Amino acid sequence: MRLAVDVMGGDNAPDAVLEGCRTALNTYTDLHVLLIGDEQKISGMESFGERVSILHTDSVIDNEDAPVRAVRRKKDSSMVTAVRKVKENEADACISAGNTGALMTAGLLHVGRIKGIDRPALSPMLPTTDGGGFLLLDVGANMEAKPEHLLQYAVMGDIYMKQVRGLNRPRVGLLNVGSEEGKGTELAKAAFKLMEDAPFEFIGNVESRDLLDGAADVVVCDGFSGNLVLKSIEGTAISIFSILKQELTSSLKNKLAAAVLKPAFKRVKNKMDYSEYGGAGLFGLNAPVVKAHGSSDARAFFSAIKQAKQMHDESVTSRIKDVMSDISVKEEYHD
Amino acid sequence: MRLAVDVMGGDNAPDAVLEGCRTALNTYTDLHVLLIGDEQKISGMESFGERVSILHTDSVIDNEDAPVRAVRRKKDSSMVTAVRKVKENEADACISAGNTGALMTAGLLHVGRIKGIDRPALSPMLPTTDGGGFLLLDVGANMEAKPEHLLQYAVMGDIYMKQVRGLNRPRVGLLNVGSEEGKGTELAKAAFKLMEDAPFEFIGNVESRDLLDGAADVVVCDGFSGNLVLKSIEGTAISIFSILKQELTSSLKNKLAAAVLKPAFKRVKNKMDYSEYGGAGLFGLNAPVVKAHGSSDARAFFSAIKQAKQMHDESVTSRIKDVMSDISVKEEYHD
Repeated sequence: MRLAVDVMGGDNAPDAVLEGCRTALNTYTDLHVLLIGDEQKISGMESFGERVSILHTDSVIDNEDAPVRAVRRKKDSSMVTAVRKVKENEADACISAGNTGALMTAGLLHVGRIKGIDRPALSPMLPTTDGGGFLLLDVGANMEAKPEHLLQYAVMGDIYMKQVRGLNRPRVGLLNVGSEEGKGTELAKAAFKLMEDAPFEFIGNVESRDLLDGAADVVVCDGFSGNLVLKSIEGTAISIFSILKQELTSSLKNKLAAAVLKPAFKRVKNKMDYSEYGGAGLFGLNAPVVKAHGSSDARAFFSAIKQAKQMHDESVTSRIKDVMSDISVKEEYHD
Repeated sequence: MRLAVDVMGGDNAPDAVLEGCRTALNTYTDLHVLLIGDEQKISGMESFGERVSILHTDSVIDNEDAPVRAVRRKKDSSMVTAVRKVKENEADACISAGNTGALMTAGLLHVGRIKGIDRPALSPMLPTTDGGGFLLLDVGANMEAKPEHLLQYAVMGDIYMKQVRGLNRPRVGLLNVGSEEGKGTELAKAAFKLMEDAPFEFIGNVESRDLLDGAADVVVCDGFSGNLVLKSIEGTAISIFSILKQELTSSLKNKLAAAVLKPAFKRVKNKMDYSEYGGAGLFGLNAPVVKAHGSSDARAFFSAIKQAKQMHDESVTSRIKDVMSDISVKEEYHD
């Protein structure tokens, strides 16, 4: 598998990116990476020989750049080049920890949508207390959605959880404010009706309160709602860990007791750490485009590479294409 | 102040409700309560003499009841009677820990909306790490909202935080997926524009990730989004505390160290416990209607009573009426 890597994206680029690539190259002997970025800053890859190529670019898209304009103007940026290499069939997939909006824009523009998918969905795996994790989509590729978009998200999520996470029959839930049918917005009500007859295991509405408890394996919603939920979970976890830290270091006695519990706290934090599960796939494009978390360290970046590789090896894109081109699905659920 | 109390609502009714009332009666010597419910189950109130009246009803609205139908059919239920006593001017405010939807329906039907407020908003205070708390509205009184509804929510939240929480100039934020203007749904974009010129301290968009850090004192959003965020915060906190408990009791060594830290953990839990701040006010009605959390214990129910009393004593309803009848506000921001 040939992976195009934006070496310059993310808070810890390029070091964490390169270290993540080294781990991946050591783990997967069939992996080839094309590193795109400032060649002066790329080193330590000699031992991998021909499995690593380097393409120099000066231009970088920042987090502050306006996505659409940046993709248009910074055509030679490391991110846009990585995406374009997929289009030009010099790579099978691409990955970046940089500006999310720009990666979505570049992906849509250069890699393009799968026929039958109206809109791609940004799709991270989030943690559950039992360690299984769930896929949440969309978390912001599109702010608003129609019922049929949510259905398409569900189809893609179902395929991903089967192919990549090995679930036999993923439980697909609709994010809503109550568990009974008839709850929520007009969008939620209409999407519920569409999904009842869909060719996956639709378990009905799921509430945001129950997500981390593993209420569903795939949770679909519009991008605005998904983004709010994603960041609420993140923010709450960060806040609780920060108050905990304050309280546990407030006296010598507490510090000593907390030191004993350090491994336990570490395990709790790891359980809540979704970078373990990889990045956020941009589902619905013609090839795997993976967004690694902006704050990725080497391990998180490796997880995101692993995800891109699994998506490629397990033919997630072609499976989505197959299902979407299945006329019965298109006609039955598409209008 | 005369408070009508639904004695039968909530998971811990009637004991927690009655205990909360006793605390409130001991705290506020000018408080009179009208207890509505099964008189066989109401006891221990003798010492308060004429400050307590009891009105017997057999009928109770359950959490499983469909709100609109229940309010229509169970006219004599403890909840509907409590709300009706406000309408009949036999009480200044009412409170229930029962079925949220039914309380909203009964409030709207019997207490009615303030002129100029198109829709009431369910408005809980949520915790922040600094202990100040923030008001989130709406969390589900109305699933969908128009930009002017969000503006009205903001006006009400601003008044509440000034009158009841004593803030001089509350910072009002719009819940959104990014901090820059132009982010989010069409609703968010339009509401942003409306609020820029509004007569309160509009600080722009706030992200759900930053809410517990105190990003704003008042956060406005449509009820669907608010409900998702509220329950995401709740669910994440519950999940983290549950994994913590598991890990900290996984060995004898951990148990011993955790015992030392028990007071610290208790403080962390308390910081995240929003029942301290009261219940959720149903803002925009002609009198205070307060929803106590369904799982309220006596302390939480007391906090909710305190909130109803403060709303009454600080004339929150009349202040909202004043502002909404101010023609400049109505004409300038209302269409």
